[in-house]
Amino acid sequence: MTPRTIALASASLLAGALASVPASAEEGMWTLDNFPAETVRSEYGWAPDQAWLDKVRNSAVRLTGGCSASFVSSEGLILTNHHCVASCLFDNSDGEQDYLLNGFVADRRELELKCPGQQAEVVTGISDVTETVKASFAGLAGEALTKARDAKIAEIEAAGCTDRATTRCQVVNLFGGGQYKLYTYRKYSDVRLAWAPEDRAATFGGDPDNFNFPRYSLDASFLRAYENGKPVKTPAHLEWNPRTPKDGEITFVVGNPGSTSRLYTQSQLAFEREVRLPTTLATLSELRGRLVRAMEESPEHAREGGDMLSGIENSLKVYIGRTKALNDPAFTGKLAAAEADLKTKSEANDAIGDPWSEVEQAVDAYRALYLPLRFTQPSGDLYGYAQALVFAAEERAKPNAERLPGYTDSALPLTEKRLLDERPVYPWLDELTMQWSLSKAREYLGVDDPDSKLLLGKESPEQLAERLVEGTGLADSAVRKQLWDGGLAAIEASDDPMIQYALKLSQRQRELKALTDENYSGPLAGAGAQLADARFAAYGDALYPDATFTLRISYGRVKGWNERGNDVPILTTMGGTFERATGNAPFDVAPAYAANQTRIDPTTTYDFVTTNDIIGGNSGSPVIDRAGTVIGAAFDGNIHSLGGNYGYDGTFNRTVVVSTDAVQEALENIYPAPALVKELSAN
Amino acid sequence: MTPRTIALASASLLAGALASVPASAEEGMWTLDNFPAETVRSEYGWAPDQAWLDKVRNSAVRLTGGCSASFVSSEGLILTNHHCVASCLFDNSDGEQDYLLNGFVADRRELELKCPGQQAEVVTGISDVTETVKASFAGLAGEALTKARDAKIAEIEAAGCTDRATTRCQVVNLFGGGQYKLYTYRKYSDVRLAWAPEDRAATFGGDPDNFNFPRYSLDASFLRAYENGKPVKTPAHLEWNPRTPKDGEITFVVGNPGSTSRLYTQSQLAFEREVRLPTTLATLSELRGRLVRAMEESPEHAREGGDMLSGIENSLKVYIGRTKALNDPAFTGKLAAAEADLKTKSEANDAIGDPWSEVEQAVDAYRALYLPLRFTQPSGDLYGYAQALVFAAEERAKPNAERLPGYTDSALPLTEKRLLDERPVYPWLDELTMQWSLSKAREYLGVDDPDSKLLLGKESPEQLAERLVEGTGLADSAVRKQLWDGGLAAIEASDDPMIQYALKLSQRQRELKALTDENYSGPLAGAGAQLADARFAAYGDALYPDATFTLRISYGRVKGWNERGNDVPILTTMGGTFERATGNAPFDVAPAYAANQTRIDPTTTYDFVTTNDIIGGNSGSPVIDRAGTVIGAAFDGNIHSLGGNYGYDGTFNRTVVVSTDAVQEALENIYPAPALVKELSAN
Repeated sequence: MTPRTIALASASLLAGALASVPASAEEGMWTLDNFPAETVRSEYGWAPDQAWLDKVRNSAVRLTGGCSASFVSSEGLILTNHHCVASCLFDNSDGEQDYLLNGFVADRRELELKCPGQQAEVVTGISDVTETVKASFAGLAGEALTKARDAKIAEIEAAGCTDRATTRCQVVNLFGGGQYKLYTYRKYSDVRLAWAPEDRAATFGGDPDNFNFPRYSLDASFLRAYENGKPVKTPAHLEWNPRTPKDGEITFVVGNPGSTSRLYTQSQLAFEREVRLPTTLATLSELRGRLVRAMEESPEHAREGGDMLSGIENSLKVYIGRTKALNDPAFTGKLAAAEADLKTKSEANDAIGDPWSEVEQAVDAYRALYLPLRFTQPSGDLYGYAQALVFAAEERAKPNAERLPGYTDSALPLTEKRLLDERPVYPWLDELTMQWSLSKAREYLGVDDPDSKLLLGKESPEQLAERLVEGTGLADSAVRKQLWDGGLAAIEASDDPMIQYALKLSQRQRELKALTDENYSGPLAGAGAQLADARFAAYGDALYPDATFTLRISYGRVKGWNERGNDVPILTTMGGTFERATGNAPFDVAPAYAANQTRIDPTTTYDFVTTNDIIGGNSGSPVIDRAGTVIGAAFDGNIHSLGGNYGYDGTFNRTVVVSTDAVQEALENIYPAPALVKELSAN
Repeated sequence: MTPRTIALASASLLAGALASVPASAEEGMWTLDNFPAETVRSEYGWAPDQAWLDKVRNSAVRLTGGCSASFVSSEGLILTNHHCVASCLFDNSDGEQDYLLNGFVADRRELELKCPGQQAEVVTGISDVTETVKASFAGLAGEALTKARDAKIAEIEAAGCTDRATTRCQVVNLFGGGQYKLYTYRKYSDVRLAWAPEDRAATFGGDPDNFNFPRYSLDASFLRAYENGKPVKTPAHLEWNPRTPKDGEITFVVGNPGSTSRLYTQSQLAFEREVRLPTTLATLSELRGRLVRAMEESPEHAREGGDMLSGIENSLKVYIGRTKALNDPAFTGKLAAAEADLKTKSEANDAIGDPWSEVEQAVDAYRALYLPLRFTQPSGDLYGYAQALVFAAEERAKPNAERLPGYTDSALPLTEKRLLDERPVYPWLDELTMQWSLSKAREYLGVDDPDSKLLLGKESPEQLAERLVEGTGLADSAVRKQLWDGGLAAIEASDDPMIQYALKLSQRQRELKALTDENYSGPLAGAGAQLADARFAAYGDALYPDATFTLRISYGRVKGWNERGNDVPILTTMGGTFERATGNAPFDVAPAYAANQTRIDPTTTYDFVTTNDIIGGNSGSPVIDRAGTVIGAAFDGNIHSLGGNYGYDGTFNRTVVVSTDAVQEALENIYPAPALVKELSAN
């Protein structure tokens, strides 16, 4: 499971969920201010108290790269997944020194590696701003509504965090518009890599084994948070507990699930199944094919394309799993029944009206906008830089309340960091992705469509991408900084072809955003609030909202499942790696494993499964036992969990965890890091 | 539109259709022995008589490459599409002489180019064998049914055509088991290429313009049938009529539509939408990506991969169109209503029973078999040769009635021709396709699935494909001939790794075929007959069966359509090419067009559209006017026709035709062929 699925469309547009189904046992990504303690107590005979919850909240870390993590020492040491730091290893590597391939152990703290674009954040406060935000758009509709709402959010965020160097404020929309909450974070924008195993240790079995179990993966790494050039002090952290999990013991996963769509109405699900998923399957598979082949062309390509390929393959597996789920009548029948139940319960409630029809109308409007929205945003890092620079320049010239969401005062620091942090760009890779996305645009929009003509002019996708990528200077972070600092004047005066191209497209992108706000996002915001009200009226407030990449807690237990008549065990051991190995990638044993085979205790618990309800974004989340100690890091779901975007099935869905036991073994006997061992045991 | 969509699964398994909906005006791919003359007369005030029908039947040619065509001179000259001969041009080319790129004009007949694997066939008789075939399996079910049926079919075919050098017999299942008819063909197994334009003249606009209109494509070529080294005499042929079509005039398309699924029940359609199409979209798109990238690696790869890429892109467009159709509630609503109507009309008819439930049960069984069936057959020409050699050796050792359908006495000559005709094999291309298909097998079946293990052993897909492709001698037709002639003993003694691999897989492939016959094909054959009876009882016999790559006639008229408020004209002119050209592929003008621009009459009719109901396999079909003269060759459908597999919508579906007017202009002024001009005008 990679941090996030590849965002191909303006994902945020559909991220707002709309209703909520009553949770079944162990289902739920609960906000920490609404933990279902009574339910847990009745099921497990015990539940965490407020002190327990506060401690894990203060130890839980959000990584802006799209992952979760936790502090595990008093000196800023952070446990997360290897796949959450793969980009950092990749960005710090070159043809000479390949940290992704070979792993990395910092012999001294001064050698720890800076991770471009990465920031660590800890929640320090959550306050309810629902009434204020809702009042800002009362009586409004369409684009007027979204503008008023976004202005109010920008205002609340700006007022909430005046010190933008160390804090971050974010207003989050929960229950698809039912609640608005202001989250305040302590942020650490200097994050460094302390320890990582070889890539193959983490990715043993590669894409074929991804989302599968039994599994043999050391998907773990350590980061460290810095401030003013020094490790930060983190008295609030989780105790490191390298042990074997017990069958049936209660486990908690505390992290930031990225996005779910469990509250989607039937019309939203139909859109997913009929339009978004088929389009995504076909186009992303083609990109995969182009990249797979390109990586065979040379060792350089193999190395340079690897990080992107993992992301694509992971996303594809997710999308294929979602497609299966939404094409399974048994699965979709439950979702339809839940909606029918809510409708029945809401019939007598005149205040509710018919939000389902409003959503359907909005979705119908979105169907016409979807392809232009998706395809007028070419892919590629360099184009992405250009687009961000153009929008930032245009938006920063406006008052805070009038800016697009990603460019408000509260959002700008991270946008700027992502844009200006130095990291390598591989032109062939950018050409490949841009050619792909432009050729898919022409294919899906049609040759004679005005947006195709805007994108291509008389050039072919191949020519245009080549000209832009070879002509731009944006791979150089100094050039980006100059354009960032120079603002709109510098952008407009620039003769960089990628900047000129992004400028040319920006007008149409704004137009499409306005159309979407007017006909889709605006109506959804209104209907979403109604649906949330209907849900609270019908089921009370013991509900969890759809995931929003904000802190949640999930409870569950260590438990296998029955796969077509066979019991799947709760855990694997490190010795199993050598049995599963074929000698051929991706089933080849990592070199350090082979070299240290006699030193590795084969009975060490490797990976294990629990019934916790998680999704992408949860990667790296600490798996915590009753005592509040960390016994593993969640890194994946099993294959059945792929429908989890739309619903949770406790019979089959499982979280896959790399055990602290295995990490400890690796720290001692495979990738020795005595200083870390000492630091971890000091707790 | 290429001859056939790429057959990724055992397409024949689902080819049998099950019911029939009453035809709306201009809908229908009619068998020539059931032409709806009365309907045509009432709509057009005129209808062809038997002499007219006989003449076109005797002039109509089926090309075993998967296309249609017609005789247009008394000396065996055949008009078809360029894309139907692209493989022949490709197979005759090498790095030195690229006929596909440059086109081909035979200055003398002796220089005409042999087309590997290609055979021309003309229907000489159709007789009804329904009772005999049905009686052979009365009282049987499952695999016993299919075995008895196939044995009877083999017997009828063997008895029907004793002279297998010049005739071919084929029993065809119509209405999904409602009728069985014996088709007798005069066959010409020596087919040569006489004339073809440059590839770009035929593929101007490439994949982006495929299935679109307005269109600017010279998708036409000429073949010639030979026998004993001489052109065959074809007194029965169509008169060549290079003229502009008139808006609204009646047109007939006579050809061999390959396969439709218009009689599918709801459960069969669900399987398509839920399983087959999503799997196909994702996997085939990845192959496209791999190939697109590989073709960029060198001019050799670009040339050698081009033919396969066209096929893949064409198929993908078809599958994407079908996905859209089956995800369009308005479209599927009509299909559901048609089924409901038939059910209602059948309620009082006790003889019908409930075939819909039987089909549903069969489809449920097929769901479990689908992935193994699909993925235990690796892709690649060389593996295909090996598989055919292995099965042929095993089957030929059995009595005719016990053999698999492709290996009966009546089927063997074409199987042998396809296997032994000399054509180039490009190992890199075979490796690419085989690696792709093996890696998709592992992905979809799962690493630990027994079929994955059978396919791969401990090797990776990349290694295995490389070892087999580099180690096999099957690219040499002499080696294939030796193995063919040597029979089972030679196969079993062979140390060719590809043969050994095909042998290893054959057992499992037979097992899966038996399981499919027992649980799917057998039950379908029974239920299909019932459904056909229900349909005839409800609607009479004025029905057309689903397409089966047998001769059909479609009537319609020259007519544009309204596309989102804009009237699409009935035709384009050759001058329009130069206006649409951008100078960049695939919108670059073919060199001979550019060189002869001043000689080309820009007002010449280029392509035009009609309401005829066609589908893949119809490519190359003559478009015939009331007088029985040929005014064009059908080569494509418009974008709306892609749902045509499941249903026809006369408001939007159109056939796209290259006019004889344009071909004549090309023969005179672009790719001069005075001998052909003379031959065509001699009629």
